[in-house]
Amino acid sequence: MSGGAADDKRFDLIAIGRACIDLNAVEYNRPMEETMNFTKYVGGSPANIAIGVSRLGLRAGFIGKLADDQHGRFIKKYLSDAGVDTSQLIVDREGHKTGLAFTEIKSPEECSILMYRDLAADLYLKPEEVSEGYISQAHTLLVSGTALAQSPSREAVLKAIQFAKRQGVKVVFELDYRPYTWKSAEETAIYYSLVAEQSDIVIGTRDEYDVLENKAGGSNEETTGYLFRHKPELIVIKHGVDGSYAYTRAGDVIRAHAYRTKVLKTFGAGDSYASAFLYALAQGKDIETALKYGSASASIVVSRHSSSDALPQVEDIEAVIAGHLIANG
Amino acid sequence: MSGGAADDKRFDLIAIGRACIDLNAVEYNRPMEETMNFTKYVGGSPANIAIGVSRLGLRAGFIGKLADDQHGRFIKKYLSDAGVDTSQLIVDREGHKTGLAFTEIKSPEECSILMYRDLAADLYLKPEEVSEGYISQAHTLLVSGTALAQSPSREAVLKAIQFAKRQGVKVVFELDYRPYTWKSAEETAIYYSLVAEQSDIVIGTRDEYDVLENKAGGSNEETTGYLFRHKPELIVIKHGVDGSYAYTRAGDVIRAHAYRTKVLKTFGAGDSYASAFLYALAQGKDIETALKYGSASASIVVSRHSSSDALPQVEDIEAVIAGHLIANG
Amino acid sequence: MSGGAADDKRFDLIAIGRACIDLNAVEYNRPMEETMNFTKYVGGSPANIAIGVSRLGLRAGFIGKLADDQHGRFIKKYLSDAGVDTSQLIVDREGHKTGLAFTEIKSPEECSILMYRDLAADLYLKPEEVSEGYISQAHTLLVSGTALAQSPSREAVLKAIQFAKRQGVKVVFELDYRPYTWKSAEETAIYYSLVAEQSDIVIGTRDEYDVLENKAGGSNEETTGYLFRHKPELIVIKHGVDGSYAYTRAGDVIRAHAYRTKVLKTFGAGDSYASAFLYALAQGKDIETALKYGSASASIVVSRHSSSDALPQVEDIEAVIAGHLIANG
Amino acid sequence: MSGGAADDKRFDLIAIGRACIDLNAVEYNRPMEETMNFTKYVGGSPANIAIGVSRLGLRAGFIGKLADDQHGRFIKKYLSDAGVDTSQLIVDREGHKTGLAFTEIKSPEECSILMYRDLAADLYLKPEEVSEGYISQAHTLLVSGTALAQSPSREAVLKAIQFAKRQGVKVVFELDYRPYTWKSAEETAIYYSLVAEQSDIVIGTRDEYDVLENKAGGSNEETTGYLFRHKPELIVIKHGVDGSYAYTRAGDVIRAHAYRTKVLKTFGAGDSYASAFLYALAQGKDIETALKYGSASASIVVSRHSSSDALPQVEDIEAVIAGHLIANG
Repeated sequence: MSGGAADDKRFDLIAIGRACIDLNAVEYNRPMEETMNFTKYVGGSPANIAIGVSRLGLRAGFIGKLADDQHGRFIKKYLSDAGVDTSQLIVDREGHKTGLAFTEIKSPEECSILMYRDLAADLYLKPEEVSEGYISQAHTLLVSGTALAQSPSREAVLKAIQFAKRQGVKVVFELDYRPYTWKSAEETAIYYSLVAEQSDIVIGTRDEYDVLENKAGGSNEETTGYLFRHKPELIVIKHGVDGSYAYTRAGDVIRAHAYRTKVLKTFGAGDSYASAFLYALAQGKDIETALKYGSASASIVVSRHSSSDALPQVEDIEAVIAGHLIANG
Repeated sequence: MSGGAADDKRFDLIAIGRACIDLNAVEYNRPMEETMNFTKYVGGSPANIAIGVSRLGLRAGFIGKLADDQHGRFIKKYLSDAGVDTSQLIVDREGHKTGLAFTEIKSPEECSILMYRDLAADLYLKPEEVSEGYISQAHTLLVSGTALAQSPSREAVLKAIQFAKRQGVKVVFELDYRPYTWKSAEETAIYYSLVAEQSDIVIGTRDEYDVLENKAGGSNEETTGYLFRHKPELIVIKHGVDGSYAYTRAGDVIRAHAYRTKVLKTFGAGDSYASAFLYALAQGKDIETALKYGSASASIVVSRHSSSDALPQVEDIEAVIAGHLIANG
Repeated sequence: MSGGAADDKRFDLIAIGRACIDLNAVEYNRPMEETMNFTKYVGGSPANIAIGVSRLGLRAGFIGKLADDQHGRFIKKYLSDAGVDTSQLIVDREGHKTGLAFTEIKSPEECSILMYRDLAADLYLKPEEVSEGYISQAHTLLVSGTALAQSPSREAVLKAIQFAKRQGVKVVFELDYRPYTWKSAEETAIYYSLVAEQSDIVIGTRDEYDVLENKAGGSNEETTGYLFRHKPELIVIKHGVDGSYAYTRAGDVIRAHAYRTKVLKTFGAGDSYASAFLYALAQGKDIETALKYGSASASIVVSRHSSSDALPQVEDIEAVIAGHLIANG
Repeated sequence: MSGGAADDKRFDLIAIGRACIDLNAVEYNRPMEETMNFTKYVGGSPANIAIGVSRLGLRAGFIGKLADDQHGRFIKKYLSDAGVDTSQLIVDREGHKTGLAFTEIKSPEECSILMYRDLAADLYLKPEEVSEGYISQAHTLLVSGTALAQSPSREAVLKAIQFAKRQGVKVVFELDYRPYTWKSAEETAIYYSLVAEQSDIVIGTRDEYDVLENKAGGSNEETTGYLFRHKPELIVIKHGVDGSYAYTRAGDVIRAHAYRTKVLKTFGAGDSYASAFLYALAQGKDIETALKYGSASASIVVSRHSSSDALPQVEDIEAVIAGHLIANG
């Protein structure tokens, strides 16, 4: 991945998966029952990551499926305005809907999401709608775990990974686990492990790796021991305010601290982390620096109202790193 | 139906069917793609009618099913605060969602609704969740056509009608046709005619009667000729700004004009019409007066932002009638 | 209904519902696990009744849907060879299958059926595939309860009944209850009662009327008291070896005994009963005689291997009546 | 895989997938419409292979799901009588049915199957019903492609393969492609390639490899070139009467001829081929000999009425090889 000038590839990163609508409570610090007004934003982990890296200066594309309605058209325009290539945004013709997430912010520690994901258009992306030629134009394919939750989106992603491997495109797997839609813990673990084993970089929280392994209280040593027997070169495991760890196949372990911030809500932390981390790697920065970028970006987004509008510029991130206020430090 | 004092019945009207959420555009006179803020209201025709008659002073109850989430709890509290008995509001335990309606108001003439009705909790009310004892306590059972769109809600309503007939409770059928959810025009016509034939009063627009008969451009004469061969005593057919007609089995035809108003949007007109019309009948007013009440109430709601909050008081309605500004007059 | 010469109608009886395949154990008096060979017959209550009345000399037609495969073509040819009009047998184009019934005859008292009814083609007959013109050509429309078990077959039957009522065609409802396919006892009772209330003649076993009323141990008095408040003129309630009862709206109660026979299995008794009973009525015979025809025909079929091939000729039936060996007599 | 004496493993081969019922036409050389009698046999490729290797002397087990009915119990008893371990045959408790295959033999060249596979119990085997401990006791896990057609059976097989890889158990993939049940050619190719890439031995017809690659007219060179970039060590590609080819990762290509026989029908050829081929390998025979065993066994089964009962003994196979009558020779 590279944001540099001389380059035979058209994209630094192509993300595949869901793009949907967040309806964020205007009045917060209260239960949603008492919230009367909601503001609309683009949401969905891979969409946010595409927006995030684009805002930082990378060339990004998006593969996904949108409802044929006002929400779908809003999302397409937003992505396009953010500089993300939308040529592979398929419009659903079977009546599926845009996924919705109503956010509830009772307090910084108590956030929840009321999901509308039944028959969400993004889950109906078909394998035949994924183009090998398009994927071949990217340095990196970013895959989000939620897209594996249901057919045919599941098969579209498996196909995209097959294309990426054949075309020498790096696969980054953002675990992005959402319990909604998945039928069982067994099924989730099967597809998570199947994809993680075929990816070059895997990024997730410790809890998400436990989902991948279908067990409680897993250790980073076991996780990395298992995954390094397969394809991954780099594994990032996030531990919330306790910071994050990067493990390399060569045996290096690099830790980054979380930055102190005034937390409004926890939504969007993972997406902003991934976009800044991948941006830094694409810029040729070392892993330690990339982790700092990720942490700084996350600290900015959790202090703001939205997940997508809030994604920072490079200078915002570098200001946080320069300020080096470390959480739990 | 009677709002009077001495009465052996506990309720003037019990409505059965959906109660859901309207998300009304804060910024209107524009496409929804450009609307960024939405305000939350209770919606759904039978819920609005129950609220409407309760606000006018009748004793109302509601039979329905709510999602086990923040939206469901909001609806229950709103109905309860409006004076509607909520003892028969069943909480869904199977993960269904609250139905949503995002409203788009491009202009008074161009309004549309973006519906989220897939797997809506209200459609999962089961026949065994309907109580014959509860229905027996009402003068009138109000049935909304949308509840017939899918099993098991369809069977719950058929069962409720069976109970009403057995208990001597009048059945009012508000056609309330919403194309969403229905599989085919054939299926719609089958259940609409099946229920209309068993009802005492039928209320709908001319277009909705065409749906019931599964043909285009039907005439009021044919419609009433057909339905009076079955149970109905009173048939109300609404023709928008051209006013509405009531037909009685005895052969009377009464016309009412629509009232002039500054139309903001068309949503909610039918619900406010039905609630005021049924209120007036319950008060022992004659049909001509009841039609005026319906028209006046509709003219108030179409000039306001919401469908439920906007439902008027008796004095509001009577002021409009007294002002007698007639549309198309 | 009449089989007489001068007649402006084309059919004495049109049956609507399922036509499927019975696979009868060649080796019986043993569990099916030990049966290695099966013989193929046409099965399904309304198909058997159409074949039965045709064999007795009435002019019969059939409305149904067949799988587009070898079993479907076999059924069509069999019906046609039996003299039943097959012009309204729709061929399914959506990949549905012919329903199957493997019969197990452990002993005359212990018979069971292993049903294959998931996605059976007959349940996919659509209301728009039912012709009002065709139904108008019959004296009688025979409706079988199983066709009500699922959409869209359910709506096709409701539509056919609507046509029959509009065209002055008598509706005979053979309860034909099969637990398979139905979702709940509540749902079954709702549609059974809805159709029974609109029929001219209702025929079933005591157990089937209990299903219609959704209660255990119902009495004939209650059943007839309830149904005579609606459309039925004639109600036949069968009590197995204890014989059957016909109740008329005028208040007559006529009992018929069952005939003694060497019982091989109990399958097919109901279909043969209905076809002979309806034949006799069509011939202008009185109810008592018609009941005897039904009983005699049933006694013949239960002594034979199949349900359809075994349906008797008039002379077979009359020979049994003449022999007057009464079961439990 | 070894059938030898000193061995720390309990099973030579464990098969996973479907076990169902074949209903073979008693009267053949005619269309099924004219067939009145059917004989019942156990069917399903992996069940036949387990029976086949057991009959040849290997120790076999089976992992699958059976309907809770007479057909399910018949299958369990048949497998058990054939010496196959049935401890991992789960009984379905959700009302699914035994898969059926009615065979039609118009001529040796024109055979077809009428499948009943909707909601077949075998497709409902769940990943949590597959035991890692059980699989660890085998030399070889035989996977059949049809089990990948639908969830949750698909995930159960993916899980079994994960277990096998972790436990050092060889995976043999019998492509066994049946168009029925699969939703699309794209989806089929995705799961076929995913599993083939993880298998040690792959066996199929040229047509089945075309399905795996989702293209028409593929070449053996391309197929083996692709698969040898992944896990497979040995690839068998069958060309019907033109014989079969084995390709090794080391670059060897071994061809075997088909044996002349009086063909009754083509069903069962693949299963008998696989069982004899795998038996020979387990006996330590070289690949050329194993191919002959496969061909000889297939030539025997296609001349007999059933697929399972017809599976030969070792001496039958060796007699054919000794007779060396080669088809197309």
